Amino acid sequence: MAHIDLGLDETQFPGISGPMRYRPETGSVLNDLAEVLLRKQPHPLTPGERELIAAYVSGLNECNFCCSSHSAFAAAQLEPGMELVKQVRADVDSAPISPKLRALLHIAGAVQESGRKVTPDLVAAARAEGAVDLEIHDTVLIAAAFCMFNRYVDGLGTFAPEGEEAYAGIAQRIVEHGYGVPEERL
Amino acid sequence: MAHIDLGLDETQFPGISGPMRYRPETGSVLNDLAEVLLRKQPHPLTPGERELIAAYVSGLNECNFCCSSHSAFAAAQLEPGMELVKQVRADVDSAPISPKLRALLHIAGAVQESGRKVTPDLVAAARAEGAVDLEIHDTVLIAAAFCMFNRYVDGLGTFAPEGEEAYAGIAQRIVEHGYGVPEERL
Repeated sequence: MAHIDLGLDETQFPGISGPMRYRPETGSVLNDLAEVLLRKQPHPLTPGERELIAAYVSGLNECNFCCSSHSAFAAAQLEPGMELVKQVRADVDSAPISPKLRALLHIAGAVQESGRKVTPDLVAAARAEGAVDLEIHDTVLIAAAFCMFNRYVDGLGTFAPEGEEAYAGIAQRIVEHGYGVPEERL
Repeated sequence: MAHIDLGLDETQFPGISGPMRYRPETGSVLNDLAEVLLRKQPHPLTPGERELIAAYVSGLNECNFCCSSHSAFAAAQLEPGMELVKQVRADVDSAPISPKLRALLHIAGAVQESGRKVTPDLVAAARAEGAVDLEIHDTVLIAAAFCMFNRYVDGLGTFAPEGEEAYAGIAQRIVEHGYGVPEERL
């Protein structure tokens, strides 16, 4: 049970979907932010790569709901799927990803601790692997945004389903329709 | 100098205003979030009280630009101004604020550490002082949002002016016109 009365069945609307329905005025802005940061095209990073940054930061923040959902969203849009996501979350340095994405994940990991942990060296390392300013900017903002989303979801004590299956269905909806389209409107 | 080329004079557009102009598509969403969370009326918390929560969390995150600006925005909308803001930032427990606002600031302080630090006891204490669900929800989201804004501003290494005077002018503009109205459009 969440810390406040969300006025809905949390097993039907788990995690962030409960507070977003409880307060649609902030919910719609948060969906807009997720949509432009994680899905909007054209972009030098694929939606799968951006979701991987979100899943990685959510894992570092130990937010079960966000980590499980964005891992599922990343897995649905990356080859070879969940196996790769788990390798990244377990050890960025040995995971089979591009050197550029690895360097961006190092920046994201620094942001998760504190904005002040992002050093000129971390930025130079990403640039040396081909990262452009927009990728560095969006990596910082995606990581920062998930430090918000994670705290929002856990700070209100929302319900997080167990197991990967529960998140696979949400992943299909997000990949097809994006953020901010409620289930009943599909 | 910021970690990326923002394409502008950072002394003219310090802190978050640089990255918001660099990437207007995310900038406008971030302004919308600040506007609805900190200024939108009617609301059981005054804009000054909500800005105080933002300043308090930004202080805990040691984000100079956000702490200085939101302290100035809070001071401009609270009696007796900056003196009160400084007392709250120095010691929430002895500051001359209402027991309800004090309990909400305790929740905000927990969110700054981690969403999982918000306990049923902290929420019950706020409720015992008269806080309603919307106030608890918005306190959690304001605190979470500033964990994002602070990381965004510092993660990109943006410029923060020294001294309180630089922020007093911004405060006047925000209090009169709100977030998301650029100086040149006034």
